[in-house]
Amino acid sequence: MKRRDFVRSTAAGGAAIGAAAAATSGFPMPAVAQGRKDMVIVSTWPRDFPGLGLSAQRLAARITELTEGAITTEYFAAGERVGAFDSFDEVASGNAQAYIGADYYWKGKHPGWAYFTSVPFGMTTPEWNAWIKFKGGQALWDELGSEFGLKCLPCGSTGTQMGGWFNIEVETADDLKGLKMRIPGLGGDVMAKLGASPVSLPGGQIYENLVSGAIDATEWVGPYNDYFLKFYEAAKYYYYPGMHEPGGGLSLGMNKDFWENLSAHEKAIVTAAANEELAAQYEETMAFNGEYLKKLINEHGVELRQFSDEIYDSFGEAAAEVFAETREHSDLAARIDDSFQANLLEIGSWEAIAEVAFSRQRNRVLGIGG
Amino acid sequence: MKRRDFVRSTAAGGAAIGAAAAATSGFPMPAVAQGRKDMVIVSTWPRDFPGLGLSAQRLAARITELTEGAITTEYFAAGERVGAFDSFDEVASGNAQAYIGADYYWKGKHPGWAYFTSVPFGMTTPEWNAWIKFKGGQALWDELGSEFGLKCLPCGSTGTQMGGWFNIEVETADDLKGLKMRIPGLGGDVMAKLGASPVSLPGGQIYENLVSGAIDATEWVGPYNDYFLKFYEAAKYYYYPGMHEPGGGLSLGMNKDFWENLSAHEKAIVTAAANEELAAQYEETMAFNGEYLKKLINEHGVELRQFSDEIYDSFGEAAAEVFAETREHSDLAARIDDSFQANLLEIGSWEAIAEVAFSRQRNRVLGIGG
Repeated sequence: MKRRDFVRSTAAGGAAIGAAAAATSGFPMPAVAQGRKDMVIVSTWPRDFPGLGLSAQRLAARITELTEGAITTEYFAAGERVGAFDSFDEVASGNAQAYIGADYYWKGKHPGWAYFTSVPFGMTTPEWNAWIKFKGGQALWDELGSEFGLKCLPCGSTGTQMGGWFNIEVETADDLKGLKMRIPGLGGDVMAKLGASPVSLPGGQIYENLVSGAIDATEWVGPYNDYFLKFYEAAKYYYYPGMHEPGGGLSLGMNKDFWENLSAHEKAIVTAAANEELAAQYEETMAFNGEYLKKLINEHGVELRQFSDEIYDSFGEAAAEVFAETREHSDLAARIDDSFQANLLEIGSWEAIAEVAFSRQRNRVLGIGG
Repeated sequence: MKRRDFVRSTAAGGAAIGAAAAATSGFPMPAVAQGRKDMVIVSTWPRDFPGLGLSAQRLAARITELTEGAITTEYFAAGERVGAFDSFDEVASGNAQAYIGADYYWKGKHPGWAYFTSVPFGMTTPEWNAWIKFKGGQALWDELGSEFGLKCLPCGSTGTQMGGWFNIEVETADDLKGLKMRIPGLGGDVMAKLGASPVSLPGGQIYENLVSGAIDATEWVGPYNDYFLKFYEAAKYYYYPGMHEPGGGLSLGMNKDFWENLSAHEKAIVTAAANEELAAQYEETMAFNGEYLKKLINEHGVELRQFSDEIYDSFGEAAAEVFAETREHSDLAARIDDSFQANLLEIGSWEAIAEVAFSRQRNRVLGIGG
């Protein structure tokens, strides 16, 4: 989105029009000018990237549209203003008003951040959304965010991710030993327990590392997002289901002072826009993953593989150790884990007899394969 | 929501305040007065009903809030202005501006309406949302709506529903013969093929018919919605998974002239509010179904039962006949079915290796039962 794309409306009155005119003058603008608020959004995703990137850009544009420019967003993709992994500090410091990204990138600052993206053996997107909005997840996220001067809202979700791209077949945990894999969050810690060497790389740097052999394997998202990164050129085995990111929730992380200075109406609009995009990104991924999986297989010879029960058992044992360590970090980390695991059990028990039980029967009767 | 609950804002200016004052005078108001638009919303749900009813009321209030009263909604639950099943005509005629309800109630007017709630062996909520928003579903819904002077947007979803409440155990299709069951939509047609007598009753009339013995069985939604209707007093077997409503999408059905006279900004706000509630209703149901299922079992002695593979095979054969008949209705019905079934296959094939495959492995490793 560029400044010339501002949505203006005569209904917004003279103040907004005056502010928009000033914005085109080229002079630096303060965050609040003549009743209009500027909202600089940095991101962990590459510019125009199908899936994650376009979703973030759509949300930025929607906030301007729905507020008729009362909050005017300016979006910077990864590297355009700061590097992907510098987004957190840019917003916590107040240099920018918000980031859009995956909060598990910040697990080095506090392991609690991982739960607000996705954790191994965790919740699917509908389960996670239910926890965040109706079972106390948001309050814990707010408590964590406050420690760093942030207010975060869910603003996207990838759905259940693929297990990743491998240049060898992995049948048991032994095959993971010594493997250099791009896999962030607590999923990376699970891999480390099994003898792999996990690294965290932003999306824009994975391909070059995979092609050069600096890493042997990578996960990213799923067929629709992954197709455009061409991982199949260096790793032809594409494994499912991913144990590490069953949901993949994304965050609109706002500077807390910026958020608190919004009016009640502005907060409502920003929240509605974030909720709308939270749903839309998941739906878009759901809509296109099947189509792009076929393209990967038919056009590029990708070989689809299913993780064995045996390797899943190993993942499960390692994950239990990772959660035990995470809980030791702090009282807040333990409370986040308590709430997450209790709700996973209750909500997951429902999903098991609803979406999961139905889909199995439907797929069996109609011959829809997995 | 009552008129005194209108959200007003000084930012909206004198015109909106004047209009709000006039609205309390008791005189009939035109739909458009002094720049503010009144939006009367009727509904197929009872007042303050947990789940469906509260969701509809939340959406009505949110439209007023997000527009700062520029569109001021007035919400009437089932029976407060017109009966639940008269909602369609009330809006198509222009007497009210919108309804919130389940479009499969209108399948007698056109069988295509069923696809915009849920059909047997159809899509789960995330799959259906993906079809509506990103794979052509909305365009077909618009085409159908135009035939009746309506513009519909998705505004809620129940998730996969339970199979229903029965006063006998049903093991094979033979047990369904002669059964009088409340089950609307194409799911009711499937039951009729198997020898049952389906009836369509609004939610507020089911309990009395079940207790009196006028019906032997009923489906409604799921544990959270069903708990408050006390069906367990007359039918103790609670079956899953429901073949008839794997999704359960709801509709904000607006009078087409009303919709087309909204400004681009007003359309954007109404769409955002509907999208937000589409997600929220599903998430709320997902959040509370597990908790309320436990209450039903522990407090009221409800017996949970799983439909057998054998009965599911019978459901599948009957559903194939129902779809064949539906397609014969009209070119539009056939095109809706074409689009729905093709996308079900493609999106469902993805879901099978993603959410479904993951949940099965997670639940196996963690011992989460279904």
